[in-house]
Amino acid sequence: MNAFTPTKDDKFSFGLWTIGWQGVDVFGTAVRPPMDPIHAVEKLAELGASAISFHDDDLVPDDNTRQQVLERFTKALADTGIVVEMATTNLFAHPVFKDGGLTANNRSVRRYALSKLLRNLDLAAELGASTYVLWGGREGAESGGSKDVRAALDRYKESMDLLTAYVREKGYNIRFALEPKPNEPRGDILLPSIGHAIAFINDLEDPELVGLNPEVGHEEMAGLNYAHGIAQALWHGKLYHIDLNGQHGPRFDQDLRFGAGNLRGAFWTVDVLQGSEGRPGYDGYVHFDYKPPRTEDEAGVWETARASMRNYLILRDKVKAFRADPEVQEAVAAARVAELSEPTLGEGETLEDLRNEKFDRDAVAERGLGFERLDQLAMEHLLGVR
Amino acid sequence: MNAFTPTKDDKFSFGLWTIGWQGVDVFGTAVRPPMDPIHAVEKLAELGASAISFHDDDLVPDDNTRQQVLERFTKALADTGIVVEMATTNLFAHPVFKDGGLTANNRSVRRYALSKLLRNLDLAAELGASTYVLWGGREGAESGGSKDVRAALDRYKESMDLLTAYVREKGYNIRFALEPKPNEPRGDILLPSIGHAIAFINDLEDPELVGLNPEVGHEEMAGLNYAHGIAQALWHGKLYHIDLNGQHGPRFDQDLRFGAGNLRGAFWTVDVLQGSEGRPGYDGYVHFDYKPPRTEDEAGVWETARASMRNYLILRDKVKAFRADPEVQEAVAAARVAELSEPTLGEGETLEDLRNEKFDRDAVAERGLGFERLDQLAMEHLLGVR
Amino acid sequence: MNAFTPTKDDKFSFGLWTIGWQGVDVFGTAVRPPMDPIHAVEKLAELGASAISFHDDDLVPDDNTRQQVLERFTKALADTGIVVEMATTNLFAHPVFKDGGLTANNRSVRRYALSKLLRNLDLAAELGASTYVLWGGREGAESGGSKDVRAALDRYKESMDLLTAYVREKGYNIRFALEPKPNEPRGDILLPSIGHAIAFINDLEDPELVGLNPEVGHEEMAGLNYAHGIAQALWHGKLYHIDLNGQHGPRFDQDLRFGAGNLRGAFWTVDVLQGSEGRPGYDGYVHFDYKPPRTEDEAGVWETARASMRNYLILRDKVKAFRADPEVQEAVAAARVAELSEPTLGEGETLEDLRNEKFDRDAVAERGLGFERLDQLAMEHLLGVR
Amino acid sequence: MNAFTPTKDDKFSFGLWTIGWQGVDVFGTAVRPPMDPIHAVEKLAELGASAISFHDDDLVPDDNTRQQVLERFTKALADTGIVVEMATTNLFAHPVFKDGGLTANNRSVRRYALSKLLRNLDLAAELGASTYVLWGGREGAESGGSKDVRAALDRYKESMDLLTAYVREKGYNIRFALEPKPNEPRGDILLPSIGHAIAFINDLEDPELVGLNPEVGHEEMAGLNYAHGIAQALWHGKLYHIDLNGQHGPRFDQDLRFGAGNLRGAFWTVDVLQGSEGRPGYDGYVHFDYKPPRTEDEAGVWETARASMRNYLILRDKVKAFRADPEVQEAVAAARVAELSEPTLGEGETLEDLRNEKFDRDAVAERGLGFERLDQLAMEHLLGVR
Repeated sequence: MNAFTPTKDDKFSFGLWTIGWQGVDVFGTAVRPPMDPIHAVEKLAELGASAISFHDDDLVPDDNTRQQVLERFTKALADTGIVVEMATTNLFAHPVFKDGGLTANNRSVRRYALSKLLRNLDLAAELGASTYVLWGGREGAESGGSKDVRAALDRYKESMDLLTAYVREKGYNIRFALEPKPNEPRGDILLPSIGHAIAFINDLEDPELVGLNPEVGHEEMAGLNYAHGIAQALWHGKLYHIDLNGQHGPRFDQDLRFGAGNLRGAFWTVDVLQGSEGRPGYDGYVHFDYKPPRTEDEAGVWETARASMRNYLILRDKVKAFRADPEVQEAVAAARVAELSEPTLGEGETLEDLRNEKFDRDAVAERGLGFERLDQLAMEHLLGVR
Repeated sequence: MNAFTPTKDDKFSFGLWTIGWQGVDVFGTAVRPPMDPIHAVEKLAELGASAISFHDDDLVPDDNTRQQVLERFTKALADTGIVVEMATTNLFAHPVFKDGGLTANNRSVRRYALSKLLRNLDLAAELGASTYVLWGGREGAESGGSKDVRAALDRYKESMDLLTAYVREKGYNIRFALEPKPNEPRGDILLPSIGHAIAFINDLEDPELVGLNPEVGHEEMAGLNYAHGIAQALWHGKLYHIDLNGQHGPRFDQDLRFGAGNLRGAFWTVDVLQGSEGRPGYDGYVHFDYKPPRTEDEAGVWETARASMRNYLILRDKVKAFRADPEVQEAVAAARVAELSEPTLGEGETLEDLRNEKFDRDAVAERGLGFERLDQLAMEHLLGVR
Repeated sequence: MNAFTPTKDDKFSFGLWTIGWQGVDVFGTAVRPPMDPIHAVEKLAELGASAISFHDDDLVPDDNTRQQVLERFTKALADTGIVVEMATTNLFAHPVFKDGGLTANNRSVRRYALSKLLRNLDLAAELGASTYVLWGGREGAESGGSKDVRAALDRYKESMDLLTAYVREKGYNIRFALEPKPNEPRGDILLPSIGHAIAFINDLEDPELVGLNPEVGHEEMAGLNYAHGIAQALWHGKLYHIDLNGQHGPRFDQDLRFGAGNLRGAFWTVDVLQGSEGRPGYDGYVHFDYKPPRTEDEAGVWETARASMRNYLILRDKVKAFRADPEVQEAVAAARVAELSEPTLGEGETLEDLRNEKFDRDAVAERGLGFERLDQLAMEHLLGVR
Repeated sequence: MNAFTPTKDDKFSFGLWTIGWQGVDVFGTAVRPPMDPIHAVEKLAELGASAISFHDDDLVPDDNTRQQVLERFTKALADTGIVVEMATTNLFAHPVFKDGGLTANNRSVRRYALSKLLRNLDLAAELGASTYVLWGGREGAESGGSKDVRAALDRYKESMDLLTAYVREKGYNIRFALEPKPNEPRGDILLPSIGHAIAFINDLEDPELVGLNPEVGHEEMAGLNYAHGIAQALWHGKLYHIDLNGQHGPRFDQDLRFGAGNLRGAFWTVDVLQGSEGRPGYDGYVHFDYKPPRTEDEAGVWETARASMRNYLILRDKVKAFRADPEVQEAVAAARVAELSEPTLGEGETLEDLRNEKFDRDAVAERGLGFERLDQLAMEHLLGVR
């Protein structure tokens, strides 16, 4: 269906590491050959994506081919119109980061991590990225005695304060986005959820430059509702970027293509992103971060990319139809959803005015809220039977 | 062992609802008769507790016996030396709260919830409580369309801003403590984790008056590390109160006595509360919030209360011995735990200084961190074999 | 849409306890009044259901009104054409069952449980039920020392052997169906999954009379794939009954209406039940066992019943269309799904013949399996965009 | 403490892959160099282990060094007295197994898997292994349409029937042990729990030759109680081997050393293995299967091996002391644990005799069971304070 064919205006973006994942896991070796970043850019352009993101290590070998790779890469960007919207640093793959990067106990590791980050930040700025993501997958611990959590938060803050100052100083048009995750590969990761990361940001020197990049699967690994999470992030003004994928609740990080896993959750996610109920949505790049299953060859990889974008467009259509449906609007009204936007106290009222207000508790308690009817209407839009 | 017999200095506290739980659950009816609060106070005093907490509904019927109950109750407090350290409002049991209290869609319910809260806040102040807990167990949703999360956060904030202003105005010596929970009884609860609640507090009018009351089991239901969570709360200065109990990971809220469930987690929890590695701990009341299993009669209820305190004292002893053990100190040093407290950048250094610093990445990567040895030393202290 | 209006041929069935659930949970009291079983039968008939199921305690008070209730009830059945297809015994709600029924440590409780079961089994036979379910929700433990698991399995087996002998002796046309659940209300429940229950049945005296009644949410609470589970049950010939509902992975037992929760899982569940890929499906009653949320009044209860049936019919249509779609068939072939039905050894071959067979491991390893393409086709059928 | 130093009589065993794990995970590369199997054998002998296990790929390269490696290896076994107690086939690491081995859709892969298995089975027999484990980590699916579960079970059965016939024919003194796991690396794995595997075995041609090798973490990833699981396996006579390690509930496969993770669960596990309450325990090799964390160098690896054995011996001592403690015995009696071993029906009694038996339900319901007191006694033995 042409209706679900992406265009550059849809602002879809993919990590080079996503479509380039070779399939190494704890129990098995690579199933796919390395993918040339230039080929990746061309293919993503062909499929309708508008942007890519990268880790330093995905793109640029730290050797004398670096300059040449970058030249080929920027040419491919120019040729295709694909932009670099986000970049990030790999502070987790090399064994030196086995105890973390910015919060490693070993100070020399932290210094190296910062310098690696700095170097790629400059490249990110040069390539035009406006978001710089930090996923601290190795910032954590397996055991209680090995990590002083408060010291780790001090060091995390030290790094973020240095980095925001650096960006200000350089005049880079870049904001940072922290990506929370509860566990894996570390037993427990610092800043494990959307909430923990926002709380942390509030104690930084320059909180405006730091927001979030929440990933669907990471929140769902903790059994948390992703749509609720990004709604709270928006409430705080902190949804700087998103990572869409799929997951089946608390288990290993499945990193399925968007739509797979919790499909009903994906519907409500798109609803929040589109700006439901008169509230502003998210207008940044729609970034897919997943791992094409090891069962797939390169054709399968492109199928997952195509399908992720397509599922987003399908859900966007359905969300719009749902919100425009008069019966839905009537059910939303019956469920008093908008009444929650009215202040509990009227203008000029005080708490004292509430004290002796008459309230027929049992009569109100008897009234049903009609939430199931509303939810079934959403279900039928999702299933395409309305 | 007398060493593990609590005294008032240990500041142990219990909810009236904890030892008074009658055992009603989704699948069964009450197994124990109601417990007279006066009897509860006397018995807790006998066991060595120093304080209690209560919901309005636990203690004071809303009828003409209210005054008499309060008089008997305050006399029991005076007779036993037990104090009321914390109070809270039941905004979840009555069917009127089926869609929440402070964030119910129905505005009249919200107004009633606030007035109920206000009334018990006055009683809490009168009885000398210094902490007022809000557990928003019904503030949430089962389905995506029925709750506008951002509107709900607006209303939550409205309530907290009104309440803190009220406490300031009245001059009450009370701080509020939010108690996060991810789910149950609602499908998803607002402010689902320690992190989400701290993030929220930062956007209140009077954040100093609002902190957290994190419960072991609530964080562990999301697979989160409780000791990490309260360490982050302490880092933010937000650990105003604690709820200790036991849980076996993601499943229903088990509310086991303290020590049951994740025992190794309990060791590290006490380590944080006691103030490990030169960092300040928690000096408030040690509050146990659990549900004596339905298999128990009243004698079993007191056994759980006795055991919760005893387990805390045993773990406190072990934590002290662990931290004082020279071999542990040597292992902590070998694991470079304290090195994380050193700033990553030296005095006068800038990020630029890091850029070209020599770093033998592979040599550092080869070095082991010795975390397993340290963890095994902790294990052996816990098991009492050192 | 009329296409999704149920008829008696669809064999939809509901527990009286499902639509009659009053909403008592661990944290709150009843939100709905008791429902008259006769009203329930009439209403379900009106909605298109064909059968009901009941616990003894749902239907018949153990007092002098018993006979009268039964007469009214059987008249309602006759009037509406609704049949009783399944019955079960409530061995969990009364406090006497706090340590279980058939595996309670207290022998007198076990004897009482058996007698209660027997009594309702006779009634079930009288009312024409062909399936008798045993959900052992209280058969379990919170702590390791309190339950001798092997003794408990001995007693479970003793009960099942007695009951199957009784049914044979009486000539009842009844088969038993065990309903596994991992936990809640007990900390750990015996026979926690489909697998454990089938394993147990194999050691009974009369295994033919005993099969399973797996519930979607119960398996998903353990993170298990329900469609896989019932496929294995069918492989063993043990899928005697089903309980359809919805759940969001490991957490409390949510008991959502069918379709809510894991919708993609529901699609594959219906696919298995309908008999995919030339394999026989399930032809018994399609029984919905869930709890209408506390937010709903009686109208909301009927909405959940209506929606559960409707979702089943919608999914059934989609599954058929998926299986009939030529592009799907081509993708299934490309994924070599049917090749798994070919024996690995050819006729007349022996293991020895395999030993030196040439096999180009790397060439085969390179080939993609095309599973993502197939899964996306299923997704698009589910979403109604094909 | 010498009391906790292992000897050969303790029958501790380790996988070569366990102490040889190099630390490759989804997010990072190897942190440790390959370990020479001969060195591993010598070191394990020194630490007090008595046996090892291996995958074909761990030990013997499939090239012209094979014979030489085997000679060196058997010499090391002879020199140290270490035996090979178990062997297994790696049907998961090579990309050819990306869709499984014995249940891959591609028939040629299945044939290759069987031949690989056969070859190592011969070697296992030659080296004296008495148990042959099958962990089907890649036997599963990420999506519903790609795997016909019943066909897969047919093929699994075909393989097991061929293998048991082969072992009979050759006269090998080998039994097979299936190792269940719910997920990871596949989205859902076939035979996901102890129960599913026992159920499956009952439908094999030669079930006596096939039992289980349950792993602590695999059951706990599904939130299942491992001690309950192995008790049920013993009840069925199917506990042929064990894999001990540690895990923190539903999340990725942590593979911690034994004792870490759920320590209270480990206590009850050892209690079952030692044969509690007059019931036979497990007398096979105590096999540790875990992954030394990436934070460790080789010294840390040996620390985890030493600690796993030591924790087992400590817990064994504690379990014995617990069972021998008169106060425990009194509490066990009060909890009526042994009463569960008495048949519910007396000799000569029939179900009919129960029907009208008098039973004071409410009086019995009032009695507490004293489970918490018993559990606290176990806790105090575990903590070493009794």
